[in-house]
Amino acid sequence: MTPSDPISPSVSPPAGPPGLLVAFEGVDGSGKSTQLRRLSARLAAAKIPHTVTKEPGATPLGKKLREILLDPALPASALAQLFLFQADRAQHRQEVLSPALDRGGIVLSDRLSDATMAYQAFGFGLSRELVATLTRVALDGLRPDLTVLLDLPVEALEGRLSARAEGRTRFERLGRDYFDRVRRGYLEIARVHADRTLFLDATLPPDLLEKQIDAELARRFPGRFGR
Amino acid sequence: MTPSDPISPSVSPPAGPPGLLVAFEGVDGSGKSTQLRRLSARLAAAKIPHTVTKEPGATPLGKKLREILLDPALPASALAQLFLFQADRAQHRQEVLSPALDRGGIVLSDRLSDATMAYQAFGFGLSRELVATLTRVALDGLRPDLTVLLDLPVEALEGRLSARAEGRTRFERLGRDYFDRVRRGYLEIARVHADRTLFLDATLPPDLLEKQIDAELARRFPGRFGR
Repeated sequence: MTPSDPISPSVSPPAGPPGLLVAFEGVDGSGKSTQLRRLSARLAAAKIPHTVTKEPGATPLGKKLREILLDPALPASALAQLFLFQADRAQHRQEVLSPALDRGGIVLSDRLSDATMAYQAFGFGLSRELVATLTRVALDGLRPDLTVLLDLPVEALEGRLSARAEGRTRFERLGRDYFDRVRRGYLEIARVHADRTLFLDATLPPDLLEKQIDAELARRFPGRFGR
Repeated sequence: MTPSDPISPSVSPPAGPPGLLVAFEGVDGSGKSTQLRRLSARLAAAKIPHTVTKEPGATPLGKKLREILLDPALPASALAQLFLFQADRAQHRQEVLSPALDRGGIVLSDRLSDATMAYQAFGFGLSRELVATLTRVALDGLRPDLTVLLDLPVEALEGRLSARAEGRTRFERLGRDYFDRVRRGYLEIARVHADRTLFLDATLPPDLLEKQIDAELARRFPGRFGR
C-alpha cells in the first residue's frame, strides 16, 4: 500500500533515515572488492546493519546470467551482453536494492550502473545514450548516493592481473586498448558525476584508501557510518 | 567489407533476390508452429532453400535464456524478462537472421518482435514505447516482410491447452484475463501493421489455413515460394 493510496491517506513511509546506496567501481584488480569488504567488516564490528550486494549476480536470476556472461561457449554480442546486464540489474533493483533502501538501509554494491557505461559503452563502443537509457529503466531512476571509484592505470592493472590466471586471460583476449578505454570511461563518468563520486588512486596502499573512504562517508553522511 | 568502404568502391552486395523474413505469431496452441512446419516441408519438397528459426532459443545463448525464462526457480520481473528476450533477439539477429537475409535467403521464424509487444507490453503492462524501442535496437531496424498471425479467442485457447499439461499450468497461473490482453495486443499490432500482416482465424481447419498462407505468399512474393 503506497502513501498515495486514496483508501488510506494517512499511511506514510516509515520514519527514520533515508536509504543510502554506495557503489564501488573500478576495473578488476583495482581493489574495489577489497575496500568494500573492509568497510563492511568495520560496519559489522560497529553493529551498523547494512546489505552487501553486487552486479551482476546478486539474485538467483543474476547468478545464472553471470555464469552465462562468463561462459566462452556462449557467444554474446556487446549488445546482447548489455541486455543481459540490464536484466540482472532490473531484478537486482526489485529483489535487493529497492527493498533495502525503502527500509532506510545502507547498501554497498560491488559495481553498479557506471560499470556498464564504462565497459559496454566506452569499452565496446555501444551508444552512451542507449546504455544510459536502459540503465535508467532498469534502476527505475534509482542512483547511487556515492560512488567510490578506484582508478588504476592500465600499466598497473597489467602487473596486478598477472597474479590472477582468469583476469590475465581476459586481459589478453580483450587487449590493453580495451582496458584503457574502460579506464578513460570511468574517468569521464567521474567528471560528469563529480557530485556523487569519490575518485581514488588505486595504486595507494589499501590502509590509506580505507581512511579516505571513511573520511568521505563521515563528511557526506554524518552519523550514518559510525566513527 | 561493405559497399561503402572507400578503399574498394566497386564491391557491392551479391546479386540475386532480397532476403525474405516471415514471422509466425500467435499464442501457444494457435497452430503457428504447425503452419510453419507445413510451409517448411513444402519448401523442402520443392527444393527451395530456407532457414527455420525461432524466438527465443535459436542460438546457444538463446537456448540458455529460454531455459532461464521457463525456470520457475528463477523469479524474473516483467522488465527483467523483457531484457532477456531482447538479449536473445540481439544474438538471434546477429548469428542467424542477418547472415541468412544478407545472402538473400528465406527465413521462417516461430515468433519474432510482435510476440514481445503482445506478451510483455499488452499482457504484463510494460510501456509499449519501451518495448518498441528495445526491439528496434535489438533487431537493428530489421522487420519481418510478412507476419502470419494466427488469431485464437481465449475460449478456444483454453480448450486446446487442456490437452497440454505445460500450457495448462501456464494458463492457470497467468489467468484468462492475461491471455485475453495478449490476444487483443496481437489484434492491435495487426491493425497498426496491416501492410505486413496476414491475419488468420486459427479456429479454421489446418489445411485451409495452409492454403491461405500459400496464396498470400504467392501474391506478395511471386516466384519465391514455388507453386
